[in-house]
Amino acid sequence: MSDFKSEITEFAQAFETRFDAYLPAPAGLKARIAEAMRYTALGGGKRLRPYFVVTTAKMLGYDAEPAWRVAAALECVHVYSLVHDDLPCMDDDDLRRGKPTVHKAWDEATAVLTGDALLTHAFALMSAPMDGVDPHTQLALSAELARRSGEDGMIGGQMIDLSMDTHPQDEATITRLQDLKTGALIHYAISAPARLAGASDAQYNALSNYAKRVGLLFQITDDLLDVEGDAQLMGKAAGKDDDHGKATFVSILGVDGAKARAQDIARAAIADLDSFDTRARPLRNAVNFVLERRA
Amino acid sequence: MSDFKSEITEFAQAFETRFDAYLPAPAGLKARIAEAMRYTALGGGKRLRPYFVVTTAKMLGYDAEPAWRVAAALECVHVYSLVHDDLPCMDDDDLRRGKPTVHKAWDEATAVLTGDALLTHAFALMSAPMDGVDPHTQLALSAELARRSGEDGMIGGQMIDLSMDTHPQDEATITRLQDLKTGALIHYAISAPARLAGASDAQYNALSNYAKRVGLLFQITDDLLDVEGDAQLMGKAAGKDDDHGKATFVSILGVDGAKARAQDIARAAIADLDSFDTRARPLRNAVNFVLERRA
Repeated sequence: MSDFKSEITEFAQAFETRFDAYLPAPAGLKARIAEAMRYTALGGGKRLRPYFVVTTAKMLGYDAEPAWRVAAALECVHVYSLVHDDLPCMDDDDLRRGKPTVHKAWDEATAVLTGDALLTHAFALMSAPMDGVDPHTQLALSAELARRSGEDGMIGGQMIDLSMDTHPQDEATITRLQDLKTGALIHYAISAPARLAGASDAQYNALSNYAKRVGLLFQITDDLLDVEGDAQLMGKAAGKDDDHGKATFVSILGVDGAKARAQDIARAAIADLDSFDTRARPLRNAVNFVLERRA
Repeated sequence: MSDFKSEITEFAQAFETRFDAYLPAPAGLKARIAEAMRYTALGGGKRLRPYFVVTTAKMLGYDAEPAWRVAAALECVHVYSLVHDDLPCMDDDDLRRGKPTVHKAWDEATAVLTGDALLTHAFALMSAPMDGVDPHTQLALSAELARRSGEDGMIGGQMIDLSMDTHPQDEATITRLQDLKTGALIHYAISAPARLAGASDAQYNALSNYAKRVGLLFQITDDLLDVEGDAQLMGKAAGKDDDHGKATFVSILGVDGAKARAQDIARAAIADLDSFDTRARPLRNAVNFVLERRA
């Protein structure tokens, strides 16, 4: 557990240097847009999605620049979604990763455009030439990122979340919501490098199952943190979901029920990796990290 | 002129059918996002950018599905930018194409997500397999769409527009602003089909010059319409720029100066097409259409 913590911290530092280079430099009359993109994208975050991309690729024997690029594109999508989520008309958050959100540091219009620019930049990264990657594979990776980020993925989940008052507040609804809202990008973080590394169908399917469980685990622990978490560690306010009366895994299963469910899912996710050898150690540790995270 | 009007109206109808099929169908708990995407994307608009894509491709002898797909992707980007521009924190418009804007028909959060979903969908369209298109060409088309839509293109222009109070209010600034904000997507509408159709370098350069001039012409006539336009024909409020004290080509050059400049640019744009034969007639007519438009 503490090994993994130092591993992902070390990774986050290596990623930061690369991510910095992948982001545009502020220049000329439009400088503010690149400044705001860099302000919100750099200098924080667990970088769990990028970690999964690079680690899964390495596990499958692929260790080249395109894995880092795919990781950066995915992180651009994740960060843009946070910038828009934080807007007053969405979750209305003043803090993110311990610093003022973009609409607080600048204004709402800048935050809308900054999110748009990060989303667009993700696809700029995905479509620039990738050394040694078959262009059909690259197009498939880009298409999958669009699908998992869009109306049939993350945005679809956000839409369900926004319109929860019109849906049944049950476990099936919450599971579907989270499978899209959080699960889709986490799935991409594992399925994209599998595709990039030329995984076999059996490997791909095992990793896909693992990814689905980790995404669900991530959300259940997120809901638990929202009830039990430490606002200072999290860099954002805890207890927000309950304030808004939103259904969560905790409100439906209870704290103990949600914890038990998280344990079951964690065990199953580790079992998904049975066919991999010791190289899957980081992915096994990641499950425990998500299970036991405090922020 | 009236020939062109009927030509583009006919085109808009043909495009509508295809665009409808390229957009996702509402389904399940997340139905609202596809409903809002379709609400704002379908049933209106001049479709000038799609017209340029399909017409330029045809002029160069390319007449296949990918031209329509690129047109649809570009229109998704254009429409998303309108949805976000209309938000209260941006231009705060209640009407678009004669009907309530997305944040009026639903709410602001839905409008943010709908814009995000249309932008994402553009890249889903660009990265799905394109029959008969070399995958390197397809990646280049997608990369160029990202560049012209993003921080170094349309969004960069929007950012300059937002921060105009910190810039000199002169013609150089307005030209740079518009070159990015409006010009970048219009350029793509002409350069993308040139690339798709395998244009020669000389053809590409002539069309690129034409595109730059048409983009500028479009913005100058937009500023003139804002002063002289008919709100009912335009489906949105006229005189908004002046209300907001924004610098425009009209505020800098005066009405007569802006009209004279528009005439000069139109002549030069038509001259850019000299090396093309009678097949360039629609692109020549388009210049006069933009010059003389009333909405």
